[in-house]
Amino acid sequence: MPTSREECRRMDAQDPLAFARERFFVPEGVIYLDGNSLGCLPRSAPARMADLIERQWGKDLIQSWNKADWIGMPQRIATRIAPLVGAAEDEVIVADSTSVNLFKLAAAAIRAKAPRRVVLSERGNFPTDLYVLQGLERLLNGAVELRLVERSVLMDALDESVALIAVTHIHYKTGEIHDMAAINARAHKVGAFVLWDLSHSAGAVELSLNRDDSDLAIGCGYKYLNGGPGAPAFLYAARRLQDNLEQPLSGWMGHAAPFDFTDEYRPAKGIARFLCGTPVVLGMAAFEEGLKTFDGVAIAEVRAKSIALGDLFLRLAEERCGAEFRIACPRDGKTRGSQVALTHPEGYAIMQALIAEGVIGDFRAPDFLRFGFAPLYTRFVDIWEAVDRLAGIMSRRTYRAPRFQTRAAVT
Amino acid sequence: MPTSREECRRMDAQDPLAFARERFFVPEGVIYLDGNSLGCLPRSAPARMADLIERQWGKDLIQSWNKADWIGMPQRIATRIAPLVGAAEDEVIVADSTSVNLFKLAAAAIRAKAPRRVVLSERGNFPTDLYVLQGLERLLNGAVELRLVERSVLMDALDESVALIAVTHIHYKTGEIHDMAAINARAHKVGAFVLWDLSHSAGAVELSLNRDDSDLAIGCGYKYLNGGPGAPAFLYAARRLQDNLEQPLSGWMGHAAPFDFTDEYRPAKGIARFLCGTPVVLGMAAFEEGLKTFDGVAIAEVRAKSIALGDLFLRLAEERCGAEFRIACPRDGKTRGSQVALTHPEGYAIMQALIAEGVIGDFRAPDFLRFGFAPLYTRFVDIWEAVDRLAGIMSRRTYRAPRFQTRAAVT
Repeated sequence: MPTSREECRRMDAQDPLAFARERFFVPEGVIYLDGNSLGCLPRSAPARMADLIERQWGKDLIQSWNKADWIGMPQRIATRIAPLVGAAEDEVIVADSTSVNLFKLAAAAIRAKAPRRVVLSERGNFPTDLYVLQGLERLLNGAVELRLVERSVLMDALDESVALIAVTHIHYKTGEIHDMAAINARAHKVGAFVLWDLSHSAGAVELSLNRDDSDLAIGCGYKYLNGGPGAPAFLYAARRLQDNLEQPLSGWMGHAAPFDFTDEYRPAKGIARFLCGTPVVLGMAAFEEGLKTFDGVAIAEVRAKSIALGDLFLRLAEERCGAEFRIACPRDGKTRGSQVALTHPEGYAIMQALIAEGVIGDFRAPDFLRFGFAPLYTRFVDIWEAVDRLAGIMSRRTYRAPRFQTRAAVT
Repeated sequence: MPTSREECRRMDAQDPLAFARERFFVPEGVIYLDGNSLGCLPRSAPARMADLIERQWGKDLIQSWNKADWIGMPQRIATRIAPLVGAAEDEVIVADSTSVNLFKLAAAAIRAKAPRRVVLSERGNFPTDLYVLQGLERLLNGAVELRLVERSVLMDALDESVALIAVTHIHYKTGEIHDMAAINARAHKVGAFVLWDLSHSAGAVELSLNRDDSDLAIGCGYKYLNGGPGAPAFLYAARRLQDNLEQPLSGWMGHAAPFDFTDEYRPAKGIARFLCGTPVVLGMAAFEEGLKTFDGVAIAEVRAKSIALGDLFLRLAEERCGAEFRIACPRDGKTRGSQVALTHPEGYAIMQALIAEGVIGDFRAPDFLRFGFAPLYTRFVDIWEAVDRLAGIMSRRTYRAPRFQTRAAVT
């Protein structure tokens, strides 16, 4: 492990993923450790978007639905996600938002498992996941019971009353990783479905949805997948389940023959039945460019570098900032996502001071400083610099920032 | 009414909306009569999108959620829609797709009207509307009964069993306009809610949601509002109803304090509770540019020109193509949207021939030729040219195109 800025530079020079950084516009003078909130701009995106806007929209107009295959985007773009999550191409589709996709799959799962009614999740799960499940519970008024338990007893709570367990693979604050294969196995043993939220996983860690016998998953496009602000989300449904699942947001794009304009909904065969409305073409195109940054990239190398970056950050933070912070993420890289978390009562003020010095991480209430590492563009020297500035702030106590504002950045 | 190409040119020169055409990129050599499917590219959009992508995403990254007010987009953009639909600014919000928004509002309405369970709609309504209502019916399994009736008996079917009537204000194929005030009044008399789909209305006809005592509405961003392919959609909820409606897609953006990251959903006060996931920023920004094309435009003038364009099209088509077509839209401009429809057994082939000659309309199964007029950029001379070419095709019988392909353009 490097013990100087120079050694970090040397590691960057030897990094087998170094070529990938050239695929991004990384702003000058900024150490960006928030790719887990919004991935950097792919260099190919501006030209792609200009062509989409000026030629495909401006000149070809409505004909681009066929000519530029806008209509095929949800499935075409998904073929780039499938290998990143260990799924077959026809098991993934791009649509809507993570929240909307969670609703679709949770509702479909509950329906398939009736009369079971329990949806199991974890306290402190990412809020929108809980909120959407609560929405489903209220809507179905007695047909769903949301059961929230502490993370430590999640496995034990998986009994034969459970229709669905819906959890986030990598915790958004702590970075803890659930054992996907183990939870799937335990759930299947009691006859429950598992729905994984991969928002903090896809593009950052190795995933093997098929090999781990996963049922359902959703994930975010704008984090490690570099799809741009508010990018469309994706969802996965195992092929063995697809034709037995009915999702309630049965808009025309999920119809077997949307342009027949019949009055009766008839779900498409396969993954397309999970589509709802018209695809948001601008967001889709940017997402496609984001995914191209993974061309020729081995996820095993991404993961290895991610662990090394996280280990380095934690070791340096302990060496340089000593007892200032509590480390609030796993120390073992194998059970930690591509992020680290430190806590401090003045966390918000410290993060503001860091941002003022050009290190962009983020803050999560009440006291979490979160730093994310996107191995395609985060360098070892960035970690060195970030901790160096953090140590400076802590030693000079230059973090008198205003109180946490609630209207903060999007995770 | 003009009787020559020259007279059409003269009318265009005197058109009080002529200035608006300069706000669009209208492709050379094309007569575009499909703005009701995809509005033309606003001239301001390419620069706005380049700035959004290169500066806000590329340089400012995550900070743009606050600095560029990405987080405020759903409400900010809606303030431009409100005057176009006759609503207050805090009654409209931009989010998701039309289909998803329909699900939210229909589910909320049904819940508020329980134990009533009937959702009334019209056979031949736009398919995604029916499909989404069917999805809700299946999901709620007994708590909703979708009742589809012929348009002619819709008013009579509004009885005290009805919780909600969900209809499209302007029919996507025939262009027929429902009497909004009359349906609202009749529905309220029997204690039902009305949910209007304004997809073919907003930006094309005068709407007075408030004055007509409307409850709920949804609408599309990519048609007359020029928001770009797959633009986000909008929804309206009357202020008097907002805080009593609970929508089930309760994602974090609709939370009273999304960045408090609490486990319990608590809906925002007012219109924000109808948000779900993270806004799709790229689509939002393009939509904002689309709406700017209405700056300083009086919708009454849009409507007057729209009727004149439609009347001209129908008169010329009758004069020049005689008995070839059946007119499948109202002849009376006051009850017709900003579109006309002709039917012909060879409709698909004829539309393909027209497109080959540079006139872009669209075809709707089984035999509808549909032509939409966007008064901000459609000229009287365009109507003349379109019918001239149509007449040429009909007289030469040059419409031997392949059979209708189901993978056609998006409405």
